[in-house]
Amino acid sequence: METLPLLAPAAESDCCALSGRAALSPSEAQARARILKALSDPNRLRLLSIVKAGDGGEACVCDLTEPLDLGQPTVSHHLKILVDAGLLHREKRGTWAYYSLVPGALEAASESITAL
Amino acid sequence: METLPLLAPAAESDCCALSGRAALSPSEAQARARILKALSDPNRLRLLSIVKAGDGGEACVCDLTEPLDLGQPTVSHHLKILVDAGLLHREKRGTWAYYSLVPGALEAASESITAL
Repeated sequence: METLPLLAPAAESDCCALSGRAALSPSEAQARARILKALSDPNRLRLLSIVKAGDGGEACVCDLTEPLDLGQPTVSHHLKILVDAGLLHREKRGTWAYYSLVPGALEAASESITAL
Repeated sequence: METLPLLAPAAESDCCALSGRAALSPSEAQARARILKALSDPNRLRLLSIVKAGDGGEACVCDLTEPLDLGQPTVSHHLKILVDAGLLHREKRGTWAYYSLVPGALEAASESITAL
């Protein structure tokens, strides 16, 4: 702190006067929390790991139900949350929907934690 | 995939037989989701950003209430969640409690997203 006199330790009476400027803005915090919330579920993390490991970086919805031992509606619900959060891309081809990671999305979410 | 014959594309009839092995284990997914859940709240992200920017990498609880415009019980509730998740360290000194980041914890949470 020696080189930043404006942020020198404040007297007890005004301990809170300067701290607000360090906080992440409310809108930025909201945006980051929204993505992290989509990631904060074990089944969704497992779905992402399967998609990431899939051939060509994608997975058919038919590959996603059995490994998680969940019903199709539950898997679809989790996949929709991941698509809505901008983490997964969905493409319908023939009978099945195929899911792939949105390029850079996991890296951005990861950075949103370290770059607080 | 050419170098990993065991993971070669499966025929449609057994499309799900191999995909399970790619998934994060349930216990690992649960552990990661727990930490990410603690991070998936805008007020908690803002609290962490203030602590991170604090003098000596710590912040007095008296610095954390005003910038967020929340009551003391709400701030304490959020801080407890961050401590319980292993993200914040709490130390009582005199009248006030002081919070600091647990070294490496944000980096580990960040990596838990990219290393799926």
